[in-house]
Amino acid sequence: MIRLYELCASDPDLVFSPYCWRVRLALAHKRVPFESVPITFMDKDKIAFSGSKLVPVLTDDDTVVSESLDILAYLDRTYPQSPLGLDTETGRARVRFINELILRHITPVTFKPSLLAIFEAQPEKAKGYFRESREQRFGTTLEQFHATASGADAHKALAALEAQLKHVPYLDGEQPGATDFVVVSHLIFSWVYGFQFWKDDSAVGTWFTRLIDAYVEVAGPITRQIHSSATQYAPA
Amino acid sequence: MIRLYELCASDPDLVFSPYCWRVRLALAHKRVPFESVPITFMDKDKIAFSGSKLVPVLTDDDTVVSESLDILAYLDRTYPQSPLGLDTETGRARVRFINELILRHITPVTFKPSLLAIFEAQPEKAKGYFRESREQRFGTTLEQFHATASGADAHKALAALEAQLKHVPYLDGEQPGATDFVVVSHLIFSWVYGFQFWKDDSAVGTWFTRLIDAYVEVAGPITRQIHSSATQYAPA
Repeated sequence: MIRLYELCASDPDLVFSPYCWRVRLALAHKRVPFESVPITFMDKDKIAFSGSKLVPVLTDDDTVVSESLDILAYLDRTYPQSPLGLDTETGRARVRFINELILRHITPVTFKPSLLAIFEAQPEKAKGYFRESREQRFGTTLEQFHATASGADAHKALAALEAQLKHVPYLDGEQPGATDFVVVSHLIFSWVYGFQFWKDDSAVGTWFTRLIDAYVEVAGPITRQIHSSATQYAPA
Repeated sequence: MIRLYELCASDPDLVFSPYCWRVRLALAHKRVPFESVPITFMDKDKIAFSGSKLVPVLTDDDTVVSESLDILAYLDRTYPQSPLGLDTETGRARVRFINELILRHITPVTFKPSLLAIFEAQPEKAKGYFRESREQRFGTTLEQFHATASGADAHKALAALEAQLKHVPYLDGEQPGATDFVVVSHLIFSWVYGFQFWKDDSAVGTWFTRLIDAYVEVAGPITRQIHSSATQYAPA
């Protein structure tokens, strides 16, 4: 039986980490059942056994795997049905590189509008940790950092996805693969709080809906917590 | 015999288009000999036979292929030695998506410092066309657009490459593949004029040198035209 240790907000059903979401999506895609073990930022002792300080951690009977991309490669090797395209070294290298590009050029722009929503959704005991660690990383307060968020910038940051998805239904071509789950996970990160930077009828919108629908069909509804500010950042 | 129609400056040996460079690199990688047909911005009638308005155009006896990524896929199919990793639909889709990301998030930052060098290297009869078409695209004069160029920004834009290349010697893993040639071609674009935004001993620098050395070993020296302003943009 697979167990997935993943990050949750004060509502244990509200899973928001992109690194966890890509694993969830891959498991549903392969129709491999799993048990979720939601933990908050303050429960890291629960994954100490893995040697990793970060979720996701996946256990499959006696096997323990951490790091989301290593987990995806493990799943593709062990459960080859509905392939993710990680069976070759080149395939894995490309997805890793795409993740590095997204992390630096898209996520910083698309997560910013939802920063205060993410903060507010944390359990009280985790809020101090969240504020302190993030303010150190950003070099300013959460509120000042958030003040520079722009829905227009977030929309513009999706231009490369839109271009690709005008040619093919999925980033990986005719079928969804690791690239799709890695990239969409960065958007789900904000979307669970109601932030959507694309129009429903855009190529990105059609792709996003198709991926979410496929997931929901297998795994059931997704818990979201719509933030009051979210509509401010919707595309014009 | 393969003919490659490619873009040159007033010196016909100065090839600078990233779309042409990726094809040159792939041909050398596969050790497939080719004849270069250098054309300037003003000689587009020479590729009219292809139905494409843009170089590169590759002819292989009776076969005519345009669009750099389609040419790479054609070469990988027809000359399978030293593979580029374009033999699957997923492989091609990933490289296409990486190209879309690079085009929007890296090239605009790394080509800007060399803009005036590119302009000055064109033949007199092409300068008017170059200025007019680019000023329309940028919405301002070449000089004003160039004034916002920053070597520090160009250096920073390479962070995703640096992260990937700290893990593996090539973007595509242990061996160079299409991703390497597609991405490095965007850097060669400025480097032929002397612009280098990475340190020689960085992961990007080691990778770049390795790719250039492998090319030179097969194809001979690369014509460059070092611009007097290039050193201003070198990393600190």
